[in-house]
Amino acid sequence: MSTLLEQEILSQPEVLAGLLDKELARVQRIVAELPGFSYAMIAARGTSDHAATYAQYAWGALARRPVALATPSLHTLYHAPPRLDGALVVGVSQSGQSPDIVSVVEEGRRQGRPTLAITNDGSSPLAAAADYVIELHAGAERSVAATKTYTAQLAVMALLAAAWSGEQARLDELQRLPEALAATLQGATIVGPRAERYRYMEQCVVIGRGYNYPTALELALKLKELTYVMADAYSSADFRHGPIATIAQGMPALLIMPTGATFADMLELAHELRARGAELIICSDAPEAQALATTVLPLVGALPEWLSPVAAIVPGQLLALHLALARGLAPDQPRGLKKVTLTV
Amino acid sequence: MSTLLEQEILSQPEVLAGLLDKELARVQRIVAELPGFSYAMIAARGTSDHAATYAQYAWGALARRPVALATPSLHTLYHAPPRLDGALVVGVSQSGQSPDIVSVVEEGRRQGRPTLAITNDGSSPLAAAADYVIELHAGAERSVAATKTYTAQLAVMALLAAAWSGEQARLDELQRLPEALAATLQGATIVGPRAERYRYMEQCVVIGRGYNYPTALELALKLKELTYVMADAYSSADFRHGPIATIAQGMPALLIMPTGATFADMLELAHELRARGAELIICSDAPEAQALATTVLPLVGALPEWLSPVAAIVPGQLLALHLALARGLAPDQPRGLKKVTLTV
Repeated sequence: MSTLLEQEILSQPEVLAGLLDKELARVQRIVAELPGFSYAMIAARGTSDHAATYAQYAWGALARRPVALATPSLHTLYHAPPRLDGALVVGVSQSGQSPDIVSVVEEGRRQGRPTLAITNDGSSPLAAAADYVIELHAGAERSVAATKTYTAQLAVMALLAAAWSGEQARLDELQRLPEALAATLQGATIVGPRAERYRYMEQCVVIGRGYNYPTALELALKLKELTYVMADAYSSADFRHGPIATIAQGMPALLIMPTGATFADMLELAHELRARGAELIICSDAPEAQALATTVLPLVGALPEWLSPVAAIVPGQLLALHLALARGLAPDQPRGLKKVTLTV
Repeated sequence: MSTLLEQEILSQPEVLAGLLDKELARVQRIVAELPGFSYAMIAARGTSDHAATYAQYAWGALARRPVALATPSLHTLYHAPPRLDGALVVGVSQSGQSPDIVSVVEEGRRQGRPTLAITNDGSSPLAAAADYVIELHAGAERSVAATKTYTAQLAVMALLAAAWSGEQARLDELQRLPEALAATLQGATIVGPRAERYRYMEQCVVIGRGYNYPTALELALKLKELTYVMADAYSSADFRHGPIATIAQGMPALLIMPTGATFADMLELAHELRARGAELIICSDAPEAQALATTVLPLVGALPEWLSPVAAIVPGQLLALHLALARGLAPDQPRGLKKVTLTV
């Protein structure tokens, strides 16, 4: 009997196909209708915040649109919301329930700014607060740890970037996502048996850069939620500004490094970490990277770097699932977590 | 013979007094001269990025100005800098040397946006790239781990917030910083002897919210740099969205919770963590919070919440210093770190 978590991980190709089918036209209409804006202000927590971090790169690189990540406590605790002149205000939440995220979108509306909700629940308070709503169409996510709603959120961010870019080639690339995820899942069947090696791992670092910095953040969160391993995520640049001091002989370092503009930087870091005695767990499609790894989280190519985060999290999700099982934990119900977290 | 690190920690009241003396008039002139902007885009790495995170709260709450944190790889690796219409572009760097931070400021200038450098070196490439420069006047920082330049960066962010707010009361409050830091150092002499308890600590979480979320980030970085403990920082809101699952019996949790708007939220979390068996190390001026702690990092009141981060990091700096000594490490030269880190 498989877990809900595993079923949801395996459903991701189908979820993405459904999302592209149902929301592409709506996203294009929203992009056409939206009034001009200088920058986007995105409010999100947890996994959704990692999708927002992906938007910083995708909207920046493909559409040259800067993204600020909101600080909801300015709204809810300090009662001093910033002036949002020039902003598109976006709330991202699987459940659409968290009061702090809703507050930011409501404030955008109060100030007359365009507002957008990205949520798996079109009847949620977040959806009600926004001018425009993009639904994830992921179906109910019953496992506490988000998986299919994360890749669906990434796909929505990618859809928006592609629509803003006005380039048909980007929209065409998006259509490859379901097939690429199916291939990634196929290639990642080797990950499960490797999890046992990490049964007694107590801590690790997870590093990515650019488009895959959010992949590092999200994989670290999955490891924390599902396996209780203290997994600390960094961009490779920030990692060199201090935290690299924590690396000693045997420290596991998970590197997210698909082929692309950040690869050379990540490869240099991989060599440096090897020299310091770290054990490398490498998520990549590049043989040159895989050759440095004790454990490979394989990526089965075929996606351009800007879409690689949608696939790159998948072998990591499976690693977290199988490590939870190897540790005798219940992947569907991590201790002390509820599916919907309400924060103010 | 004390360490350079200790000398620099102890010099902070004097550094802040000098900074306020030398830069107040300049900051007021810059604020008067700067053209209008809708939001600030701040580029920074490591400790400087924590000062930028403080600006998100201080500039937001006191001056209602939104702050975006830049993603330098868009400039340096993807060669796709965002359009910066409406932005004030700010670079923050102790050394002013890191090419990625300089790139963002140069791009702001290329796009005709106002640019500001905050640095300890007025002759650095970062200073040369910007229209306006605010110097930290902290003197050479010879220890690898930043301490006095961090509190000086916070003070500059606070100065700008106060000047934008136009409220004399805020400027008056700023003048209390040197004395408050001297009192904090005095009160924190009890921290050193407590460090021994944590000699064999391997990991911990550090949590703050709002103004003191950056304090949590910075304290976690000091612990990583100086003691190699895997210290993971969170806002209390994000912590509840998943990472709280990592808390088991005996896990050390450092909570930054001075009196203020975030106190009730942090107090609730403190009770929840105690119920889960965490050992609490609490930085606060509030007796109600201190009573929950196994170890207190005392704050000697007298600062309003918006300035509390300048003092709240100080007992944590001392904890990291003394823990490094208890572990037999050299605080002035963490393994594998250089004072100036050049990233692209």
